[in-house]
Amino acid sequence: MKILVVNCGSSSIKYQLFLMPEKMVLAKGLLERIGEAEPSLLHTARGLSHRSFVDAPTHESGIDLILTTLTSGPNPALAKIEEINAVGHRVVHGAAEFTDSVLIDDGVLSTIERMADLAPLHNPPNLVGIRATMRFLPGIPQVASFDTAFHATLPSAAHSYSLPYELCERLGVRRFGFHGTSHRYVSWRAAELLGINRSEIHCITCHLGNGCSMTAVRNGRSVDTSMGLTPLEGLVMGTRCGDIDPAILLYLMGHGFSAAALNKMCNKESGLLGISGSSNDMRELEERASAGDRRARLAIDIFCYRVKKYIGAYAAVLGRVDAVVFTGGIGENEAGVRAQCCSDLLLLGIEIDPDRNVLTRGREGEIQSDRSRVKLLVVPTDEEGAIAGDTYQLVRRN
Amino acid sequence: MKILVVNCGSSSIKYQLFLMPEKMVLAKGLLERIGEAEPSLLHTARGLSHRSFVDAPTHESGIDLILTTLTSGPNPALAKIEEINAVGHRVVHGAAEFTDSVLIDDGVLSTIERMADLAPLHNPPNLVGIRATMRFLPGIPQVASFDTAFHATLPSAAHSYSLPYELCERLGVRRFGFHGTSHRYVSWRAAELLGINRSEIHCITCHLGNGCSMTAVRNGRSVDTSMGLTPLEGLVMGTRCGDIDPAILLYLMGHGFSAAALNKMCNKESGLLGISGSSNDMRELEERASAGDRRARLAIDIFCYRVKKYIGAYAAVLGRVDAVVFTGGIGENEAGVRAQCCSDLLLLGIEIDPDRNVLTRGREGEIQSDRSRVKLLVVPTDEEGAIAGDTYQLVRRN
Repeated sequence: MKILVVNCGSSSIKYQLFLMPEKMVLAKGLLERIGEAEPSLLHTARGLSHRSFVDAPTHESGIDLILTTLTSGPNPALAKIEEINAVGHRVVHGAAEFTDSVLIDDGVLSTIERMADLAPLHNPPNLVGIRATMRFLPGIPQVASFDTAFHATLPSAAHSYSLPYELCERLGVRRFGFHGTSHRYVSWRAAELLGINRSEIHCITCHLGNGCSMTAVRNGRSVDTSMGLTPLEGLVMGTRCGDIDPAILLYLMGHGFSAAALNKMCNKESGLLGISGSSNDMRELEERASAGDRRARLAIDIFCYRVKKYIGAYAAVLGRVDAVVFTGGIGENEAGVRAQCCSDLLLLGIEIDPDRNVLTRGREGEIQSDRSRVKLLVVPTDEEGAIAGDTYQLVRRN
Repeated sequence: MKILVVNCGSSSIKYQLFLMPEKMVLAKGLLERIGEAEPSLLHTARGLSHRSFVDAPTHESGIDLILTTLTSGPNPALAKIEEINAVGHRVVHGAAEFTDSVLIDDGVLSTIERMADLAPLHNPPNLVGIRATMRFLPGIPQVASFDTAFHATLPSAAHSYSLPYELCERLGVRRFGFHGTSHRYVSWRAAELLGINRSEIHCITCHLGNGCSMTAVRNGRSVDTSMGLTPLEGLVMGTRCGDIDPAILLYLMGHGFSAAALNKMCNKESGLLGISGSSNDMRELEERASAGDRRARLAIDIFCYRVKKYIGAYAAVLGRVDAVVFTGGIGENEAGVRAQCCSDLLLLGIEIDPDRNVLTRGREGEIQSDRSRVKLLVVPTDEEGAIAGDTYQLVRRN
């Protein structure tokens, strides 16, 4: 079975074509700057990568272009587009409605649409992608995988905010959490790697990329996570502020900031970029910090300090921690960040091995010291593979 | 030396008259509902308490009334008002300006005034109280003790928000923390009780009252604390929400909420009251929960869950924890809450003893089990005594 996985962002589309159940990647790519100047497509198939500047004024034209690319060129991934048996879509916000991946029908579509209010940056492009794919591939089963679904198991003490109860009920204000497909994949993969039953593993997963979140996993299920109603809460991110005193927003409104300006500030001008004033890229910040840039150092320090506090908080929540798992662009590649997040945590049974840490980059590996009671793992995430897996299961079952 | 300690709230004045250095309380009292219907004064001196309904339209008339009360009645605490040698005032927000208690002069007064923007509910009544006391007791040294001062030692990774750096610099946006006098008193008192040098103790102090905050104390100094720019951040409180996804406020603004409405909601209608819908009083909630009130139970659960997460986070920050200290109305009296906050924390070396816990109510005591590596202490707070101590030191030194 050939399954195409599509992830529509606000101005980009990521895709991967899988042969299932082998989970073999036949092709993959990234279309960027949709609707902006000079959209570009990086397409990889049969070991060859090719970047081209393309015409992609809309997400719909982007989907068209991707489908054409899969069947064209000297050595196409597919002979004809009808070879695609199913499509899996990443959808950011499934709210309380979707606790698992689902086959898409009209009801599902309208529910996702209704939830756009909660994820205004994410759900609308996801929907456009789904609609376009349905138009170009009529009759092919389509599946939606939600970033929130893995966190549907959060107990009420973890998902409830301390705000007026009726208001929260009425407006759907609760912690949903995101990156669920990633947290699920790496926690279950960690169980596999450690020879622990998936339904028994207690671990803390750290998805540290441009967006960052952490999850407390008890017996293979999410019981707490750092992102909240929206992906703004929690850790320091590339440009997002994460946890702040909510009264800061009220204070800034008193200084003339509008809701729109605050939204932009918290989502686009904060985080590593806001603190450093120079970059949202961790590698670049590490170079600057080494060269003596005090604010780049501060940005890294705050980033790691907050990860460390969440490790402590989630250790308290779990009561037993088999493993701490690092994933995402930063988590998989930045040994310095991992070391700083785990420094002086022997109280929690956590100690990193400096050599193993530095030598583990972008691949699976254990990086704890011999006396560390807790396993420390690097597990590259595979959200697309997980979505393909869900899609395969749902299509086979129906 | 006789020292009067004054704590002006928005509609109340608490006071205590101390004989120093013995820290003997000669009189104390609480004037409530200033400027409202039926102000009342509860005054205690020489073992006798007396409540009277009084005329107190303003804080100034309230101070006048308190001074008169101290010298009147059949058995007055003072023969004449001139016996008062100095006055210590609690001031909520000292911002970055005041890292310790100070003798009040015109410069200090105008700085406190300037900071009213950061603590609009608290600093203005504090100022009115200081001005009135200066008028009624001219030439008597007056000292300001700041709730923020103990937290002046927060390292930058703990006090910086992940927001645009220049904006934070320009508008003074950083974590200040509050309840500092209480956290200082109970952490140093814990050191004394445990026979640890004050400059060496590592502890986590939990001030759980109507306002709630926690502090990580390393070597006797505050290195992190849960309240932030304002007293809104952090734990669940009586009517304050504490930590929430900051985007919730932006989401609610999109649903027509004004800044003023959000301010009121977060400060007055959230927390235990907001979740339970019935009460901001922990004792009442415990009764309701026992009687089957599901939302009262949820309010307690969220409250304790968040304390527990902060215990974990601060354990990670400190790397070594000698003691967890409970204080404040809830912390000193509610054994059930303490037990729930400390449940399943053996990973951190924390285990409560059920009998010691229940038997320790409103007094100093150790409540850990014999195998708990961390000491668990109840220490009734004494902010007034600490302010009297600071005042005594400053007046003697000058």
